[in-house]
Amino acid sequence: MKKAIVLLSGGLDSTTVLALAQKQGFATYALSFDYGQRHDIELESAKKIAALYQVQDHKIAKIDLRIFGGSALTDEIAVPKNLSITNETENHEIPVTYVPARNTIFLSYALAYAETIQAFDIFIGVNAVDYSNYPDCRPDFIKAFENLATLATAAGVAGKDHFKIHAPLMNWSKKEIIENGLAIGVDYSQTHSCYDPIIKNNQIFSCGKCDSCQLRLAGFAAANQKDPINYI
Amino acid sequence: MKKAIVLLSGGLDSTTVLALAQKQGFATYALSFDYGQRHDIELESAKKIAALYQVQDHKIAKIDLRIFGGSALTDEIAVPKNLSITNETENHEIPVTYVPARNTIFLSYALAYAETIQAFDIFIGVNAVDYSNYPDCRPDFIKAFENLATLATAAGVAGKDHFKIHAPLMNWSKKEIIENGLAIGVDYSQTHSCYDPIIKNNQIFSCGKCDSCQLRLAGFAAANQKDPINYI
Repeated sequence: MKKAIVLLSGGLDSTTVLALAQKQGFATYALSFDYGQRHDIELESAKKIAALYQVQDHKIAKIDLRIFGGSALTDEIAVPKNLSITNETENHEIPVTYVPARNTIFLSYALAYAETIQAFDIFIGVNAVDYSNYPDCRPDFIKAFENLATLATAAGVAGKDHFKIHAPLMNWSKKEIIENGLAIGVDYSQTHSCYDPIIKNNQIFSCGKCDSCQLRLAGFAAANQKDPINYI
Repeated sequence: MKKAIVLLSGGLDSTTVLALAQKQGFATYALSFDYGQRHDIELESAKKIAALYQVQDHKIAKIDLRIFGGSALTDEIAVPKNLSITNETENHEIPVTYVPARNTIFLSYALAYAETIQAFDIFIGVNAVDYSNYPDCRPDFIKAFENLATLATAAGVAGKDHFKIHAPLMNWSKKEIIENGLAIGVDYSQTHSCYDPIIKNNQIFSCGKCDSCQLRLAGFAAANQKDPINYI
């Protein structure tokens, strides 16, 4: 069985990607990041999903992007609420929740992990449809990283192997991601997407208002499915 | 003054690079890594050098590459001693001290830092002469990262700016690095290179036998200069 590294946040997208990688026959090694998220719920979801999918191994890399500042997800900037997603996409502005160079850093770690266990396949849940304003979610970026990975590593230099960065969600709408995920049995009740959740009576409630919740809810609505997680 | 990020380990090479960046007129922002080195001496050197050169700011990113294992510098593999450097280079093997994807990770962090402070220049002390067997020390790798950086970032996507990765030592021998450094006043007594130093009576002594010490000593000898640091 060929090995693959799967970047796993425990969200809807990366969970779908993990299921797709296994469906393609890869032995999966999950990699998550403890990057100073505002809350631990995301990492707990990642652990639950990794266990559920019985991955070969699950590494959690602690990285501190807060030393640079610059994003609502790690810094003290408020998470924007009730933005019109369509407008935001149309005016070509980079969202405030964008973390500088985040996917570059995440893929670099995945590459280190891959090189260590001699894997040549990395799966990442980037998506150019809903995140068209995040520079590091576009096909050109993924291609450029693939090229870099091959040049950066011993196996690549020896011409023995070529790295492949799989971004199966790249051109899917949220609706299509959910439909494809459900078709291969993904249980979305275990996934977490909200940027600003609250915990009440030991249960997680998503805010339903942040960008991420809005995208998720719109996706389930478009797919004519009920989102199985709790909202406030 | 244009801003530049300088990757600074506190070693001979990166200190020379910092001096060269300042000589070129950049306002310098140093970035070092606490990556589970076997000893703290390297980071202490970086702090001393950053202070000496009065950089605008010095960030230290804590990253844990040990979760992946795989290198003598971070893992429990013994640092090789008394290797013939020439033979090692000739047989095209990757040295055991190679850390998987290390420069990719380091440059990714530099990119995050650059994007946050709106710098478009990154300086790195990689060298293709003495480290010809490290895949991520070659011109092709640096070019590929430059391409990636421009695609990965908001400014690059907007076509406003292009990232430049400066690797001024790329084609210099250790002798040339030392000669060029001395010509612009670099004080090498403050730099540290040894993979396996010891501390005696509060003084640092380099082993003189690891790859790094041997390269350094051979460089000073070729430049007809005395290495000002202490050896056992």
